Amino acid sequence: MSMEVREEIAVCGGKLLNLSHYASVVNCNMNVNVYLPQQYYTGSDGPIPVIYFLSGLTCSPHNASEKAFWQIQADKYGFSVVYPDTSPRGENVPDDSAYDFGVAAGFYLNATEEPYKKYYQMYDYVHRDLPAQLMDYFNNLKGTKVDFMVNISITGHSMGGFGALSGYLQNYGTKKYKACSAFAPIVNPTNVPWGQKAFGNYLGNDKSKWQLYDPCDLIKRVRNDGDDIILIHQGTNDTFLKENLKSQLLLEASKGTSWENKIDLRLVNGFDHSYYFVSSFVPEHAKFHAKHLGLI
Amino acid sequence: MSMEVREEIAVCGGKLLNLSHYASVVNCNMNVNVYLPQQYYTGSDGPIPVIYFLSGLTCSPHNASEKAFWQIQADKYGFSVVYPDTSPRGENVPDDSAYDFGVAAGFYLNATEEPYKKYYQMYDYVHRDLPAQLMDYFNNLKGTKVDFMVNISITGHSMGGFGALSGYLQNYGTKKYKACSAFAPIVNPTNVPWGQKAFGNYLGNDKSKWQLYDPCDLIKRVRNDGDDIILIHQGTNDTFLKENLKSQLLLEASKGTSWENKIDLRLVNGFDHSYYFVSSFVPEHAKFHAKHLGLI
Repeated sequence: MSMEVREEIAVCGGKLLNLSHYASVVNCNMNVNVYLPQQYYTGSDGPIPVIYFLSGLTCSPHNASEKAFWQIQADKYGFSVVYPDTSPRGENVPDDSAYDFGVAAGFYLNATEEPYKKYYQMYDYVHRDLPAQLMDYFNNLKGTKVDFMVNISITGHSMGGFGALSGYLQNYGTKKYKACSAFAPIVNPTNVPWGQKAFGNYLGNDKSKWQLYDPCDLIKRVRNDGDDIILIHQGTNDTFLKENLKSQLLLEASKGTSWENKIDLRLVNGFDHSYYFVSSFVPEHAKFHAKHLGLI
Repeated sequence: MSMEVREEIAVCGGKLLNLSHYASVVNCNMNVNVYLPQQYYTGSDGPIPVIYFLSGLTCSPHNASEKAFWQIQADKYGFSVVYPDTSPRGENVPDDSAYDFGVAAGFYLNATEEPYKKYYQMYDYVHRDLPAQLMDYFNNLKGTKVDFMVNISITGHSMGGFGALSGYLQNYGTKKYKACSAFAPIVNPTNVPWGQKAFGNYLGNDKSKWQLYDPCDLIKRVRNDGDDIILIHQGTNDTFLKENLKSQLLLEASKGTSWENKIDLRLVNGFDHSYYFVSSFVPEHAKFHAKHLGLI
């Protein structure tokens, strides 16, 4: 339960910590980046809330740290940002030569199949183990006021957008996350090539296990008991939209459910799948989350 | 005199164009990125001014486009940003295995030595040929209102910070650039390893030729005839500060000259040499340039 600070980088008014820690749930060392906003250093009135940003295929924690530009928003509103890695890594971790499966493609689920299940427990890592370890480390070290476990929300890009939607909905009953948003998410993994490949290998052939993670299935089973809105941006020039992302399917699945008209899907003209797209809409997502985290 | 649009990417309220064009002055095809702000598309009152951002060692036009986050500032104030490449490239271009010389290390000067002089004419490319080609292309194509040649200013990072200072001062007499700023620039290349290696190879052993490009020498010969200020940010944790950047030397050189107290050098505590540093201070530089370009 200890963190190694590999780098502490001044960014905007705060610091980005590049951390490494052993996570027994995934049986390996994990990298994670944490941005502590200026309010952490100047003293804040209360505990600083946290946004978890889940990244997409091929990413490490650095891609979004460098290119999504959450930091200036974090300073503006006073939240911390956690950038988890996208899979377990290391010599022993079973991998695949494809970019869409194995290392950097953990799909934020708990694998049940050999040889993956020993390491690919990314659901438990992101939603349980990592927050607890961050809480433990920062509390012990500095008596900090960052709240990594209670006043938190979640977002992500592409595979990470799927991870955010899936984790938010699976934990909706306990109100674990105050809000959820996504950038170009995979919304219906059980019906698209990226998801079918990953789910088949990680979860096996029993598709009832797949549905536990599928946002299009979850919104039918998880009751929206308030006015909770999910904010999603999707670029119309995204080359993955038609085959793998299919954001429209989430809107269709919501019809007749408690989530009807609660999915705020914004198709944005001309935007692609890159971090140029993500960074362009981070200000809107930051405002959305800041509101739900009680910052505005 | 034609431009190939390799990609047109929606970013913030405008578009980033990844362009390629043949530049006879450097005898090869050059890549350049141009951000056209939302004002270009929504219609602006007058010609849109331009900031040239010169990148550092190892960079292509993409590094700063992706990580410096000028785009949101460009939309805010209404300027275009041009990201030139850092050297000629291609099979025929003489290169070196080191990161600090040859391809991606053109040092924004006109080489006089073999085998470099045929290609490494980056001074003429950046300050003369590129602006003319951009003006020609955009005027012919769209009757645009972007002013790539008159209401312009210049900035850059590291080697590009040197390029900005050097180009600004060499052209100060004609007021070619309305303002100049720099992020962690090499200020005294003739006295540091990076500069000595590059200048020796590109310019030969006659050090009188080196001085034509050296900001610490230029400020003694170029008279500041108004209230022109050069804005520089430099991180105190920059690993290149002590040996290669040495920003303090520019302040020292300015003493007793017309530039004394006109170099606004801001040492910023804890910042490193990365784009995390650059992006953190781009908002201040954007405001500085916007003011000198008549936008605020």
